[in-house]
Parts: sequence; C-alpha cells; structure tokens
Amino acid sequence: MGVQQVICMKGGVGEGSYARNSKSQAALLSKSMPLLEQAVLDLCCTTLPESVAIADLGCSSGPNTFFAVSEIMTIIYRRCRQLGRSPPGFWVFLNDLPGNDFNAVFKSLPTFHEKMKEENGQEFGPCHVAAVPGSFYHKLFPSRRLHFVHSSCSLHWLSQVPPELLNKQITNKGKIYLSKTSSPALIDAYASQFQRDFSLFLKLRSEETVPGGRMVLSLMARRTPDPVSDESCLLWDLLAQALQGLVSEGLIAEEKLDSYNAPYYQPYTEDLETGIENDGSFSINGLEIMVLPWDSASGGQNYDRPTTAQKIAKSMKAVQEPMLASHFGAEIMDPLFKRLMEIIAADTREVEHVSVLVSMTRKA
Amino acid sequence: MGVQQVICMKGGVGEGSYARNSKSQAALLSKSMPLLEQAVLDLCCTTLPESVAIADLGCSSGPNTFFAVSEIMTIIYRRCRQLGRSPPGFWVFLNDLPGNDFNAVFKSLPTFHEKMKEENGQEFGPCHVAAVPGSFYHKLFPSRRLHFVHSSCSLHWLSQVPPELLNKQITNKGKIYLSKTSSPALIDAYASQFQRDFSLFLKLRSEETVPGGRMVLSLMARRTPDPVSDESCLLWDLLAQALQGLVSEGLIAEEKLDSYNAPYYQPYTEDLETGIENDGSFSINGLEIMVLPWDSASGGQNYDRPTTAQKIAKSMKAVQEPMLASHFGAEIMDPLFKRLMEIIAADTREVEHVSVLVSMTRKA
Repeated sequence: MGVQQVICMKGGVGEGSYARNSKSQAALLSKSMPLLEQAVLDLCCTTLPESVAIADLGCSSGPNTFFAVSEIMTIIYRRCRQLGRSPPGFWVFLNDLPGNDFNAVFKSLPTFHEKMKEENGQEFGPCHVAAVPGSFYHKLFPSRRLHFVHSSCSLHWLSQVPPELLNKQITNKGKIYLSKTSSPALIDAYASQFQRDFSLFLKLRSEETVPGGRMVLSLMARRTPDPVSDESCLLWDLLAQALQGLVSEGLIAEEKLDSYNAPYYQPYTEDLETGIENDGSFSINGLEIMVLPWDSASGGQNYDRPTTAQKIAKSMKAVQEPMLASHFGAEIMDPLFKRLMEIIAADTREVEHVSVLVSMTRKA
Repeated sequence: MGVQQVICMKGGVGEGSYARNSKSQAALLSKSMPLLEQAVLDLCCTTLPESVAIADLGCSSGPNTFFAVSEIMTIIYRRCRQLGRSPPGFWVFLNDLPGNDFNAVFKSLPTFHEKMKEENGQEFGPCHVAAVPGSFYHKLFPSRRLHFVHSSCSLHWLSQVPPELLNKQITNKGKIYLSKTSSPALIDAYASQFQRDFSLFLKLRSEETVPGGRMVLSLMARRTPDPVSDESCLLWDLLAQALQGLVSEGLIAEEKLDSYNAPYYQPYTEDLETGIENDGSFSINGLEIMVLPWDSASGGQNYDRPTTAQKIAKSMKAVQEPMLASHFGAEIMDPLFKRLMEIIAADTREVEHVSVLVSMTRKA
C-alpha cells in the first residue's frame, strides 16, 4: 500500500484514538495562536469577499480538527464587527488523506456549528463546511479559490519514503528514520525528498490561493543544521529499538524491519525559508520556533518518568499505529508500544519537541 | 434523535449494505440518463468556466455515488473535445447527511479517478472532489457557486415528520405513512410538509446555482392525484403490517409503533411542477415519469414471488434500517424484515415504482 493509504491518525474516539491522544498537537496549536491571529488580522485589512474560503490541510479527526478554523473565523468575525464592517460568510475545507476518520469529523459538525453561534452570536455565518479527501501533495482545489490556508503538524509527513530506500539503492538496517549512524547518502535521500515535497506543496498552494491570501504552516523542525541531532531523531531511534526488540523475540522478521522507513522529515528551519524563497510566490511575514517540553503529551502535568513514558508511547501510538500496523501487522502493535514505553522509561534522555511556524502572504 | 441524524442508507459494503442492495436506484439512474444527458449538453452550449462545479445531493455510499457525476463530467469532456473546445476542469461536491458512510466513499476515490482517466484519456481533469455533509434543506454552499446540481432518489425524504404528528395533534395508529384509512388531516399534514420542504429546497438551490446553471432531480412520485393510491402507499402499508406483527408478538410496544412515522412523501408529479413555478427561479426544460417494475430490486431477473419478496425486503432494509433501528432498536431489524418478506411473499398485489425526473435551468 502507498503512503497515502496508510498515513492517518488512529480514528474513532476510543481509548487509543488520536482524538483522545493529541494533547501535544493541541499545545502546539495553542502556541501558534499569536502568529496565526496576526495573519488573520492582516487579512481583515484587505477587502474580504462575501464568503471567505479557509482550508485546513491535514485536519485529522478529534478535538484539534476544528480548533484552527474556529479561531480563524472567530477572529475575522469579531474584527469585522469591531470595525463596523459586515462580517463575511465562510467556506471551510477540511483536508486530510482519504483514510482519515471523516465520519467522526462529520458527527461532530452539529456541535461545531452550535459552538460557533454560541460564542459569536446567532448572526454568525453562514459557515459551510466541506471535506476534501486527498494528499496535499496533489492539487486539491481549482485555481485561486482559497483566502486562508492553515496546516498544523502535517507537513513533516512526506509524500513517500525516499525512492532510494524503496528501490533498495541504499539501506537503513535496523532503523526506521535518520539516526547518528546514518550514511550521507541516506541523509541526502531524506533531505531531497522533503525538498521536492515542500516545493511541490508550495507550488500547488500558490495556484489554489488568491493573490493576497494568507498561509500559516506549522511542522516539526529542528533548530540545528545537523539532521541527526537528538532533537529530531531520538524518538524514532527509541521506536526502532523497540522494533529491534521484537525482532530478537522473533515477533517481527528482520527483513520486515529493514524494509520499513518513516515517510517523515524534520527540516532545519532555515531550509524552509530557502524553500519558500526559491518558490517565490509567497512572502514570509513571520517565522517562529515553538518548543514543547519533553513531557508535553501529558498535557502539562508533571509525572514521574514511567508515567511520562506511558503518555509519550500512547501519543506516538495514536499517530503511528495505522502506518506501522499496515507494514508489521496489527497484532504486534500492543507489544511494540509496551516495549517502547519500557525503553523510554529506562532511558534518561529528554528532548524538546521543536516545531516551526511560518506565516506568509501569496504575492499578487 | 432528529431525522437528520438517522436518515442514511446502511453503510459499509457488507451483505446488507446499501452499497450492495441498491439495484432499483441504479436502474432509475440509468433510466434518467437521456434527460440528464440533454441537460448537460445544453449546459455545454453556454460558456463554461475554467472549473465546472457539480453537486450531487443525497449521494449515499456505494456504486451509485459516483454514477451521475461521472456521466456528467464525461459528457461535458467529450462534448468539448468534439467541438474542438478546451475541456474544463471539475469541482465535484458530494452531499449527504452527516451519518452517511463518507469514509467508504473516500476509500473508493482513487478507483474513481483512475476510471475517469481510463475512460476519457489521461488529459481528463483536473477533477477535485469534496464532500459536503449536511441536509439539503439547509444552505450547503455560498451563493452562485454551482453550475450543475443533481439529486436522485433523495427528495422524497422530508426534513422532518410533519409537526402535527410529532406534537400528537393528529395520530396515525398502527401505520407509519399514508394509507387507505388516513384522515384528511393526516394527508394534509404530509402534503404541507412536502410543500414546505420542496419550496425551501428550491429557494436554497436557486441561491447556490449560477444563473444559467442546470438542475436535474429525480424522486419517488405518483401519477395520480390520489395521495393514498397503492402506487405510493402499498409497501409502507406492508411494512406497517410487519411492525404490527411484532407488536402482537410483544417484540415492540404498541406506543412505539404509534409514535413512528416516516419522514417521507411521494408527491403527485403536477404538484412538483406547481412548486417549481411558484418558486419562480427555475424554468422547467423537461419532466419525465419513470416507471420501474415491481421486481426491479432483483436487477431485472425474473424470480418467483418468494424470491422477489426477499429481494424487495432486503432492498427496503438497506434503505430503512438505520432509521427504523434508531426508533425500534437494532435487535428487531432481522425479525422485522423477515416478517416483511413473508408478508410480501403471501400477498399477490404488485405495484410499479414510480419516479419523476425533472430538468430545469436557473433563470438569469
């Protein structure tokens, strides 16, 4: 199965679902509010259309799905009221891969609409919601339709595992992402795949966005040019260790592990700026590095190491289970993440979770 | 729960799913092709935009979901090629209530895109697909966005059970829809609810459709002004008999049956014309009555009465199960439809399934 069939957060609203294990992502969204708000307020200084089209790319399913679009609409609505202008309507497009649990998203729509009216008054709207299933590495909308594009915690997912790994030109034995022992060829392969994907993403969005439209993106990133720093590799390394453990137990065939690589890349923030400048269709209004503490998955509570390990393992499981299960089999997911939890608990290292937030304007 | 939470076809692709039990609806779609094709060809005589926006309202999930939009796009594409014009791109909006199994629809998207390219050539497109969850008795799109609106087998579903039944001002003892013994008040209540709903539907669509845009609707209807003719009431009557049977067996409380009424109405074709004329924003290009034989659920095969009864009961179950289960409980669905099958098998009456197809243009 291609990456696009399997990258999706764990659906539903059960104990292990992404909906109930996405506190880090929520914290990140929260941290991104000031820059997001500024971008929205800037947009309000332009002539707004009758209906403002807002896209959230990689919306997932759960409490975070509506967070950004709710905030964007509320800011626009209140700003217009404040300025004595008649507020626009909204056309909201929620995008994620076709495997995302959109049914769950749709079930929460009535509550979402009620909440918007409750918080902003009955005159709020109209707000039309559509879902756009598909990869954001494809064109998702006709040209010049979007006024505001938002994407949070999604763009570090690549369109595919680097082709050099898929065709076995290079190998990544016992690992599933970059690590301290990565060959320069492997590092290059990952960096090039990200560069191609990010530049394609920008090209597509520049077509879909109206001149003057705003785009705010956040994704996992690193503060150092070193692509194998702990900051971006430690958790992947620990997950690889857990997989290696299952290999020694005979639960996973060694070749299975060797043929799995994450379609993921955590770029250096400066590489992002270069990518945006090279594309040339967006001007950067602001870029911020956001750092979440090691134990952000616990929602800001201070726990002992074993409890934190459990929270981190659970949060990684909610994100990675569909991908890992499609390669290794669903039956090894519980032993895998139990082992990951033990490995994290036994380790003493801590890394901060680093993201970058970038706000830009589609040039005229 | 409101009607909008429970009107949905049986999801998934299992034995009892709508996806596998929608042969009548497929036959109807097929029959509607000539008038649909004419409407699309007429649209091609106008200046087409860069991206033609097509909405299918009540798309459901299963093989019928993409049928009409595929045909509409193919006709436009081929006509443009034929005329030496550059074919437009497409923006397809699939609408149904939020309870529809959109996840299943999205899983079939890659196949849909491949098929469109296979049948029309690799230059076909771009074709962007979005899902619009919500009742078509609400505004679903910003104003003047749609170029072609299609709806098949959906508009006979009302936005709600007539309020006079909900507030118990009138009763419908032992029945679930109109029948030979219906009081004039009951008949009026149903007719008025349909009139309000249909007129609201036209008002909303007239706002969403561009001037010159086309709309093709099909829905269950009757050829006679008599609202309690067998043509529109027999199957509901047999289903009510099956429910009565379960009441006598003690499987259903009598009050449960008395408080259930179908949010459904099968209008007289002339009433539809009057509704469209009263609304005033659409001009009728054509209206056709489509008649399917009694045993259309069997996909055109001739079976004996018991087999036909089984096919009809199964097809009714795929459509009605979610609604009935939410009121009567999921556990009685199997006994209910088994009994319905026995009742149909033991009866000798046959009715044709009558639909109306109407093609119209949004006035400038």
